[in-house]
Amino acid sequence: MQNKITKLFNIEYPIVQGGMIWVSGWKLASAVSNAGGLGLIGAGSMYPEVLREHIQKCKKATNKPFGVNVPMLYPQIEEIMNTIIEEGVKIVFTSAGNPKTWTSFLKEKEVTVVHVVSSVKFAQKAELAGVDAIVCEGFEAGGHNGREETTTFTLIPMVKEAVKIPVIAAGGIATGKGMLAAMVLGADAVQIGSRFAATEESSAHINFKKTIVNVKDGDTHLTLKELAPVRLVKNKFYYDVLELYQKNPTLEDIKTLLGRARAKRGMFEGDLEEGELEIGQIAGLIHEIKPAKQVLLEIITEFSATKQLISKL
Amino acid sequence: MQNKITKLFNIEYPIVQGGMIWVSGWKLASAVSNAGGLGLIGAGSMYPEVLREHIQKCKKATNKPFGVNVPMLYPQIEEIMNTIIEEGVKIVFTSAGNPKTWTSFLKEKEVTVVHVVSSVKFAQKAELAGVDAIVCEGFEAGGHNGREETTTFTLIPMVKEAVKIPVIAAGGIATGKGMLAAMVLGADAVQIGSRFAATEESSAHINFKKTIVNVKDGDTHLTLKELAPVRLVKNKFYYDVLELYQKNPTLEDIKTLLGRARAKRGMFEGDLEEGELEIGQIAGLIHEIKPAKQVLLEIITEFSATKQLISKL
Repeated sequence: MQNKITKLFNIEYPIVQGGMIWVSGWKLASAVSNAGGLGLIGAGSMYPEVLREHIQKCKKATNKPFGVNVPMLYPQIEEIMNTIIEEGVKIVFTSAGNPKTWTSFLKEKEVTVVHVVSSVKFAQKAELAGVDAIVCEGFEAGGHNGREETTTFTLIPMVKEAVKIPVIAAGGIATGKGMLAAMVLGADAVQIGSRFAATEESSAHINFKKTIVNVKDGDTHLTLKELAPVRLVKNKFYYDVLELYQKNPTLEDIKTLLGRARAKRGMFEGDLEEGELEIGQIAGLIHEIKPAKQVLLEIITEFSATKQLISKL
Repeated sequence: MQNKITKLFNIEYPIVQGGMIWVSGWKLASAVSNAGGLGLIGAGSMYPEVLREHIQKCKKATNKPFGVNVPMLYPQIEEIMNTIIEEGVKIVFTSAGNPKTWTSFLKEKEVTVVHVVSSVKFAQKAELAGVDAIVCEGFEAGGHNGREETTTFTLIPMVKEAVKIPVIAAGGIATGKGMLAAMVLGADAVQIGSRFAATEESSAHINFKKTIVNVKDGDTHLTLKELAPVRLVKNKFYYDVLELYQKNPTLEDIKTLLGRARAKRGMFEGDLEEGELEIGQIAGLIHEIKPAKQVLLEIITEFSATKQLISKL
């Protein structure tokens, strides 16, 4: 299955595990990399020293390539980037910010840079900034998301028409059929979030993993659009936000309700009522917590079987 | 390319042209049916006598099967259904209402019934009501849309897991790659709207057709959610609605701003400022107004070519 993306990262399968906050530590990243995909450590929920520890443990747990995902609005961004360079990580996914800011710095250190986008315009900007590839994330994805609300099914072919660099599809993908469909639409690889969040190696709280397994169609919604749009499970906290909206709140009112550490509370501490639960729409297809390696191999098996079936259409 | 859907409708290709208000008259429906797809007359914008005229003209223009799309919240729904039966139409797509209401009546008259849904729950209800197939329409579709905001990429496999009847995917599909991706995800056929709205035979105003061709990623948005969610181009009317939202309006205020005949004004009369312009996200991939037959044949050609390419992955 060699293509542009497997060659770029030197991996076996064109499958990237999303670098999710509170979910993607060294255990998950090394398990995915050992199974032939690209594991990512999610730096967004880590202090620089915690990230250093995760990188060091990941290097011990796998000889295969792995990367780090860095949301660029992170307050200690310089320390995070320096830690990544010091520890010799060779793949960085940047998100939530301008790709111009860090791409040259990283490329000078011979790091492969991938930037996450949610629109054609930002895909073109990332290409101009010199990144090696882009993740194009659709509206159905869990967690933070684009203002344009463009879905994976329409975003991938529109971006593909507009850029030359490789495209990694994200949002709504949890199965081999989803992977094949994304590649039919023009993607060179897929990034998978919620499906890997519900694995044994994920560092999410067991309550959060069980929620992914139990969530059905219609149970998640994009909200908090005034701050930064985020797809959440409709739990008590979500309905508290809805109730506040009825009162014509100011931005400050919304920030006050949100407070701090809601995502940690929900995803890491397992508070299903007061925490933010960032889960994608495709969770309606996820029915079991499994080892990451099994998830990856099932995706590859279904991908190949579906390819065979489709050729007979 | 024979499958469950081509057999159900007795057509050549598993492609349905969406029965869009103000767009899908007898000219478009007969052109699509003559080309081997299933053309639909959109009854939602027609008085019963206008619909009768369109059906009669369609019967003269094609010997192939065609159908009628009926939004069930239509005020003169009984006259519409009686007109359909009197004129001997054998395929009806129902939407915007409970499939129980009309399915038995239509099935007794030996009409093939398809119901449009936007969630797994409504897909199961439609199956229980005895419909022959369902259209599953994702969040990216133009015009009226589901409250769950489930996208095509996630809706199709989730519905497929939940029902046994054939599934027609809609929302975000305009090309042969899109058709193949939908079938990889489990669809038995596709329904295509915006791409057929921008054909020579569409009865939409030329200004509206040109808008479809010019629209880019991010230019449409789902709005008016308090009434019935509808995906519109972000024109003056759309921004007037946004401005009203800033003032914490009542439902009556919103209804007053909407007024009557906004869709006719935009799509049929070509008022691009004050009218409702119902266009799907995939319009970013539509670059030219073409004859309907050419559109259909290009889709089939790209579908086959992509199938070949994919088999080599």
